[in-house]
Order: sequence, then structure tokens, then C-alpha cells
Amino acid sequence: MRMLINVPETVVADALRGIAAAHPDLTVDVENRVIIRRDAPVAGQVALVSGGGSGHEPLHGGFVGPGMLSAACPGEVFTSPVPDQMARAAAAVDSGAGVLFVVKNYTGDVLNFDMAAELAEDEGIQVAKVLVNDDVAVTDSLYTAGRRGTGATLFVEKIAGAAAAEGQPLERVEAVGRQVNENSRSFGVALSAVTTPAKGTPTFDLPSGELELGIGIHGEPGRERRAMMTSGEIADFAVHAILEDMPPRNPVLVLVNGMGATPLLELYGFNAEVQRVLGDRGVTVARTLVGNYVTSLDMAGASVTLCQVDEELLRLWDAPVKTPALRWGM
Amino acid sequence: MRMLINVPETVVADALRGIAAAHPDLTVDVENRVIIRRDAPVAGQVALVSGGGSGHEPLHGGFVGPGMLSAACPGEVFTSPVPDQMARAAAAVDSGAGVLFVVKNYTGDVLNFDMAAELAEDEGIQVAKVLVNDDVAVTDSLYTAGRRGTGATLFVEKIAGAAAAEGQPLERVEAVGRQVNENSRSFGVALSAVTTPAKGTPTFDLPSGELELGIGIHGEPGRERRAMMTSGEIADFAVHAILEDMPPRNPVLVLVNGMGATPLLELYGFNAEVQRVLGDRGVTVARTLVGNYVTSLDMAGASVTLCQVDEELLRLWDAPVKTPALRWGM
Repeated sequence: MRMLINVPETVVADALRGIAAAHPDLTVDVENRVIIRRDAPVAGQVALVSGGGSGHEPLHGGFVGPGMLSAACPGEVFTSPVPDQMARAAAAVDSGAGVLFVVKNYTGDVLNFDMAAELAEDEGIQVAKVLVNDDVAVTDSLYTAGRRGTGATLFVEKIAGAAAAEGQPLERVEAVGRQVNENSRSFGVALSAVTTPAKGTPTFDLPSGELELGIGIHGEPGRERRAMMTSGEIADFAVHAILEDMPPRNPVLVLVNGMGATPLLELYGFNAEVQRVLGDRGVTVARTLVGNYVTSLDMAGASVTLCQVDEELLRLWDAPVKTPALRWGM
Repeated sequence: MRMLINVPETVVADALRGIAAAHPDLTVDVENRVIIRRDAPVAGQVALVSGGGSGHEPLHGGFVGPGMLSAACPGEVFTSPVPDQMARAAAAVDSGAGVLFVVKNYTGDVLNFDMAAELAEDEGIQVAKVLVNDDVAVTDSLYTAGRRGTGATLFVEKIAGAAAAEGQPLERVEAVGRQVNENSRSFGVALSAVTTPAKGTPTFDLPSGELELGIGIHGEPGRERRAMMTSGEIADFAVHAILEDMPPRNPVLVLVNGMGATPLLELYGFNAEVQRVLGDRGVTVARTLVGNYVTSLDMAGASVTLCQVDEELLRLWDAPVKTPALRWGM
């Protein structure tokens, strides 16, 4: 245990108090675990609500603000939030234009967001959903039926959020979100296991000198375990796995994402290798983002997400955004 | 070794290639190891140049851009850059209004920036320097005579950078930088040791279940080693150590900084405790920043920096900035 915490039981509540103190633009309901942009509901705009287990910060709370999410609902660490949280968030942010739920494809999240949609609809709120399932590494896993939702969540939340900020109607914002997901693919690797506060020991055994190819964001198993590879070899493996599944015809957005404990120095070096492979394969890069965005607590490792964009999606990606973790143009 | 690298020898060059690919607003000279804002020199503006050993990213390269640094010079990991780098950077960014060197107080950096200043002055460039020495934990260390420069570097670079962006003259930008440093104090803790690529094993031995109070950003020893403490106890210790040295009369900027491998979930929880202690001590908080900004590769832990600000310094802190790691208002 090398954790900067009080006790495992209060980790999420403590973090919410810390988010509230740092970000006066957000309203944080610590008791009910909902993070809301302070100016919600925004008249005439569709509201975006997301959420999921804690431990992936800045996802989702760090993406709440103008141009992205209207609200986020954090669950316990690696555990889905409950339907009441999302329903409460939907009620708080709905302006009458409807609410889009952005849901990562994990069994618990899917079930709970479905129930939340029913609860919200019972209150007269119009709800649509986008399911994010971008991870090409495995189908079905410890937490998932079908493909897992990982790095593409950032692209869906940013781009659909921009469409909502322009006043586009719910069916259009939903369509944009689906388009982003359908055009996104991810692949991740772990160089170390992850330790949750409640367990206090690594959730799986990854001997020093080995890596797990195709890891999920909860440390669930990937495709295979190998002896340590170089940054260049990992980039080759990850990018080829993605391109095999989705050979892009259009330029791509690139997310080189740290899992939490890999230094930024190494992430930038890895980005150089990812760009080399993309260049060799003739893929045009429109924008690149490097950093820790969709993390797995203290796991060392990284993931690559590519999102194929047309002019409209690129325009929405570039649109102003003002959140704790992603901010430009305002 | 759980590093996402090719070989230790190319870690810095690889990262520079990755920075170049991700940030088209920056010009990266990989061979000479200089990162420059693309629109430099900016007519009528003092230029800020900083640098230091690599391994503290996003410091300093991530702080290059309008409203902050004009250029950054990364050395090898935990090793000062050489005078030629800073002199080259100064020549590239000087508009004729002069250059301010922002130097963290480590023996090698101080010496090399002094030599760089002489080289630049020989070329007719007017140079001033601000030494950052904010760490209250220890005086003199493995790398330092006097106090170490740590988290306050971010405040000095942002606030002096804003003064420069307004067209303030060199002596005034220098004075602002000195004022920020004099009004800043930091204290850091390590929950794990740091591993450099070249060494491949932890640089010191920190048994699981212990922490080092007053750690430096290279893993150099702090004040004392203790059995693991709670987040609240660590906040008490760190904030009291700072306030003992500088009882602020004015509001403060708060930086709750991760050392690299501590999850953002924990940093926000730690921030809640830091804010609690400040509240108990009657200190008014003007702004809070939480994240990994002045890191120590894969070290787990955090540091607290307080910067006491008057209205003018707060105005400069809030001024627009556009860099990879710190961005608002543009």
C-alpha cells in the first residue's frame, strides 16, 4: 500500500470534496455523488450525462463543463454508479431539450444507465444513449459482454458535447456520439498491475519484466502476456491491432493515454513511436492528445485510441471546451 | 523495470519527437534539445527561458507558449541542461526586449544558467535571472546548496510570463518573478522511490508502508521517514511546515501536485485535506490547481505549494495562457 488516502471507505467522497474546492465552476453533491456544471441547465441545449466507476480520473468528472459533459456520476472504485445518481443528474441538467447518456460498455454501467433512463423518462425527461465500445483487444471480459469502452469515451464526450453546445437537437447529438464511437478504436497495454484501495494489493499478478497486451482499464486480462517490449514494438503492436480492425480512410484524432503511473516523459516518447507507425501506414493525423485521461489508478502502461474524423467531426473537436481536464478556446 | 521506452539513451530525444508531433504550436529542435514557441521572438515582449533535468514533465516543456515560457531546455534525466542550450534558446526568442532565465536552485542548473547568461550577453542579449528556491523541507541536499526549487517554478513561470506578455520591461518581469518566489513555499512527500531509466532500479530504498516527509523532486532525502500516515495527517504536516516558514497575510494560490504515479483520485482527496488545514488556520484560498505538474518520473507522492498573492499577482495568474499543460482564456 502506497496510497495517499485516509481510509478506503472515504476515497470517493474525499475526492469529491477536493474537486469541489478546486473547481468553483462545478457544483458537487458529495452525498449523492453527482458533479454538475454550475450553470446547468442551459436553455436550449441538450445535456450530456456520463459516469462510471471511480479510478479512471479525470474521466468523467474532469470532463464536466461548457462544451463537454453537463454532469458526471462517479461510482465506487471500479464499480458502476447507481441509477438514482444518473436520474438525479438528468433532472438537474435537463433544460427540456433532453439528455444524452454516454455509457461505457460494462455490464453494470449498461444495466444501471438503462434503469436511470426509465426513471428519468418517468419524470418526463427525453433520454437518448450512446454506448462506447472501442477496445479492439478482446470481446467479452471480466466486466463486459462485447467490446469494452475505453479511450474513445473522451472523443464521444467532447465531440457530442460540442454538438450539444451548438444547440443541435437530441437525435442529432446522439447520432454524432454514435458516429464518433463507430469511428474509434483503442488498444492498451499494462506494464504493472493496478491496486485498488479496498483490496490494497495488486488485482492481478504481472511479474516485473513482463507486460500485458490488450489490457482493460480495470486490469482485466488482455490478449496475451509477453516479455517486456520496447516502446517502438508496443506502438507497432497496438496500432496494427487497431488498423486491422478499422483501416481509416479519413484523418484521425490520436489519443496517447497514460494508465496513471507512466511518466509523461515516456508517454511522449511512446507518442513518437505511434506517429511513426501511423506515418508508415499512410494514416493522416489531424490532432494528437498526450496525457493521462482515461486511467486505471496506479497502473503503469498506456493506450492508443484513433478516431477517424470527417470535416464536421474535426470542427466539433476543435470547438471551445472548458473543463478541469480539457480546455481550449475559452 | 516497467518502463515504456526504447533504450535509456534515447528517452529524452524520443520524448522531444513526441512533443513535436503533438504540439504544432511548438518548434522542437530535437538535436539541440530546445523547445520554442513557434511565433517567437514576439516583438516588444521579454522572453522567458527555463530548463532543467528531464523527468519532471510537464515542467518545463509543457509550459512553453503564449503567456508563459518562450523556450525550455531539457537536460538528460535529473541532469542540468548545458549552457549552449540556454544560450541557443535565448538567441532564438529574444526580440530585443531581453530574456529572463527562470532557474531552479540546483547546483548544476545555477552554474550552467550563469554560463549561458554570459554567452548570451556576449551576443548582445540582455539577461536577467530569477532563482526559485521554495522548498521548506531541507536546506542543502544531494543536488542543492540552500533550498531546492520545486512547485513554485510553475507559479513563477506563469505569473512572470503574464507580465512579459503584457509588454512589461525586463526589470519589472524579473521583479515579478522574484516576488512570486519570495512569496511561495513548498513541501513534498514520497510514498515510493523513483526509478530512472539509466539506473533501472529505485534510486533509494523506501520500504512499503513507510513514507519520506520533505522529499525532493529527484528522490533526494527529506526530513524524516515515518510509518505510513493518512492523507489528512500528511496534509497537516505539509501545510504546517509551510505556514511555520511563511504565515501568509494575503490569499494564496494552492498547488496540490502529484509526483507522477499517484492517481488523480487520491490527489483530489489530498486537496480536500489541504483545504481543511488551510481553513482551520484561517488562510484564504484564491485559486487551486490539482494535478501532475512538477513530477519525479514514477514516484508516488505529492507536494503542496502555497503562493501568497496580492491583487496584481492574482490578476497575472488569471491572465490568458496557452501551453500544452496549462491553458485558459485562449
